[in-house]
Amino acid sequence: MARTTGSDGERTEAAVREAAVNLIARYGYEAMSMRQLAAEVGVQAAALYRYFPTKEDLLFTLMREHMEGLREAWERIRPIGADPTQQLAAYVRNHIAFHIERRHATHVSNMELRSLSPDRLTQILRMRTAYEKELRAILRDGAEAGIFNVEDTGLTAMALIQMMTGVIVWFRPGERLSVPEVTATYLSMTMRLVGAKIADSAARPSGAQRTLSHFDFRA
Amino acid sequence: MARTTGSDGERTEAAVREAAVNLIARYGYEAMSMRQLAAEVGVQAAALYRYFPTKEDLLFTLMREHMEGLREAWERIRPIGADPTQQLAAYVRNHIAFHIERRHATHVSNMELRSLSPDRLTQILRMRTAYEKELRAILRDGAEAGIFNVEDTGLTAMALIQMMTGVIVWFRPGERLSVPEVTATYLSMTMRLVGAKIADSAARPSGAQRTLSHFDFRA
Repeated sequence: MARTTGSDGERTEAAVREAAVNLIARYGYEAMSMRQLAAEVGVQAAALYRYFPTKEDLLFTLMREHMEGLREAWERIRPIGADPTQQLAAYVRNHIAFHIERRHATHVSNMELRSLSPDRLTQILRMRTAYEKELRAILRDGAEAGIFNVEDTGLTAMALIQMMTGVIVWFRPGERLSVPEVTATYLSMTMRLVGAKIADSAARPSGAQRTLSHFDFRA
Repeated sequence: MARTTGSDGERTEAAVREAAVNLIARYGYEAMSMRQLAAEVGVQAAALYRYFPTKEDLLFTLMREHMEGLREAWERIRPIGADPTQQLAAYVRNHIAFHIERRHATHVSNMELRSLSPDRLTQILRMRTAYEKELRAILRDGAEAGIFNVEDTGLTAMALIQMMTGVIVWFRPGERLSVPEVTATYLSMTMRLVGAKIADSAARPSGAQRTLSHFDFRA
């Protein structure tokens, strides 16, 4: 995902970020040294500090950009004015697509919060909360409209996000299922989990197991 | 969770395991040194090697015991001869209870697989697969009996396990919800997700959001 356009400086910075994500995902943030990172990118360690004055600046940048990217992707895809079911389907689709493409970055973002300074941890957690709040609002709208059945919007939002993000643990491109197949199954599970009315009629055959059901939600 | 009975050797070994889980959860396995661990426990580094000849032996022991403990807890609680809904409820209860009590150990088990040698990684993955297989069997039995509606037992098992294990990310004792309340909500979500017949009649009021619904599954 390194950029191929831009100045030498931009290309180097992108290469640093990409190498850092891979090294941290492999060894953990605390175990990665700036020296090791510089060697991986093929620059002097001093050059790194031009872009990231401290190792924590680098970690924070990776995490901030991950959350900004997720938020921007959602802003682009969200169907303004659509009903809660369509909104929820769009949220699920975007969440799965975004994370499947950024497996290592997601790993880093989830695991290395412990290494951020308190101020920066607060910033990242605020961004996460804002993103989760979008899902809670969709669930609340659906419950109030009598379309969804959820006991607790906060718990349901966390359960859905962890269920969806968990795809990166086991999904590998080119294996049994494609991304659209995985997404379709996760959409069906999500709609049933929130008790969506549409899931009842559309996704419930007479009981026996069947192959993937593809919801026809217009994106 | 250090043992208070047993020989000095057993107590030391338990203290080493407990300190290791905490240090690895805090800094990552690669960043933790045996010297640091020895200092934490208050023994000489050489003493550690009596119990764990290599650092990887220690990591492997932590992971193996975590999985053995999970499997044993399930064997104790599983309701032999019960229907798939009761079986699934027992699996959910056990999974949540086990992991909430072992937040750091779960973190280590999920994050540090990358540091196991190939043989040992295979052993741990086999133990995980066997545990997940129990859930897949319950889902398959329920689908075949026409009680559950699942598109793909493998995907559904992964989704449920990740949703449930995710509780450790946000749950803290003494906050808004108790473990039984969290468990009750996760049971409701699980039953809807798998399209369990019981969830339809028992857990679906007329649409509007409501407070926690407690399934009355006899354990």
